[in-house]
Amino acid sequence: MSTQKLITYFNNLLPLSDEEGDAVASVAMERKIKRRQFILQEGDRCRHYTFIVSGCFKMYSVDAVGKEHNVQFGTENEWLTDMASFHSVKPADFKNPNAGIPSKLFIEAIEPSVIIQIERTDLVFLFEHYPKFNRIFRVITENNFIELQNRVLQNISTTAEQRYSAFLMQYPDLSQRLPNTQIASFLGITPEFLSTIRKTIGSK
Amino acid sequence: MSTQKLITYFNNLLPLSDEEGDAVASVAMERKIKRRQFILQEGDRCRHYTFIVSGCFKMYSVDAVGKEHNVQFGTENEWLTDMASFHSVKPADFKNPNAGIPSKLFIEAIEPSVIIQIERTDLVFLFEHYPKFNRIFRVITENNFIELQNRVLQNISTTAEQRYSAFLMQYPDLSQRLPNTQIASFLGITPEFLSTIRKTIGSK
Repeated sequence: MSTQKLITYFNNLLPLSDEEGDAVASVAMERKIKRRQFILQEGDRCRHYTFIVSGCFKMYSVDAVGKEHNVQFGTENEWLTDMASFHSVKPADFKNPNAGIPSKLFIEAIEPSVIIQIERTDLVFLFEHYPKFNRIFRVITENNFIELQNRVLQNISTTAEQRYSAFLMQYPDLSQRLPNTQIASFLGITPEFLSTIRKTIGSK
Repeated sequence: MSTQKLITYFNNLLPLSDEEGDAVASVAMERKIKRRQFILQEGDRCRHYTFIVSGCFKMYSVDAVGKEHNVQFGTENEWLTDMASFHSVKPADFKNPNAGIPSKLFIEAIEPSVIIQIERTDLVFLFEHYPKFNRIFRVITENNFIELQNRVLQNISTTAEQRYSAFLMQYPDLSQRLPNTQIASFLGITPEFLSTIRKTIGSK
């Protein structure tokens, strides 16, 4: 059962008591997702924190001319959520599926995947009744923040070639699994330019 | 005394007990900062979480050709820290000022400012002894994450004019306080191009 993988993941961050483990099991919803299936679409309210048990997702926006821009990839043992949409709800509206800010993002499976989702009401229940989860999710959010800040820094201060090299170093596994078009979108360049960079690096 | 402003700030997020308030007071270090003074320089280890009581700061990187790129502004009731550098230290090294990853960022005062700093060891002490601070800092980090993600989204999917309009909406106060060169750097455009945009918007 995949819920055990989520409990193991939490245990590695901060050991859970049996009661805390049971609380996780009681709110974890397992889902199998097909390749190209969406778990969030622009305009929807994001009501789940999603933990990836296996597989790979991309979170992206689509601009005015229909071009996709990858904001984040997610693979095993990582979380994906549109935090802006997820956290924009007042406590009184937690149960209302139409409350909050519509998401500006899509989350789509790049591979067949297994995920565990926790609904907002349930996550808030964990935070209120088991303080340890505040510490765990503080650390998860800090790590995601660091990753996002590195991306911003790279985007504003490095060349495309440097960004691609950094991507290979940081995500050696992802660079094998993802099609070039996805990597190019993440780096903010065209697939053709990525090909040129790969040839340049290969000939060095 | 400025520490009371920090305690009031925390109380607004989640009411503190007297004991928790005393704990904050015992670790809060107040500092007066002059305009153009740095509280972090590239290559330093970031050892403080900084709360801004009054004034205004910019956090930026400098690229290979010496150009500044603003990552974040901070004003009253906001936090500034290079999280990548701050959190890269193992618990055994918390007291060692040379442990961890050197920062890639500068944090510099744009106005004369008053700040309250909490050192890493002290913040960890709060997290371990008063669980409520995990919840408070989880929410602070989530809010900073949302702001950063909005920035990434705007950078990859909107025009400079749209970004400037969004900046005016989101930071009406900041746009009055900051010189145009700083705003242009934040938007990723030249000051000349910002002038053109302002004229276009003014004539609409």
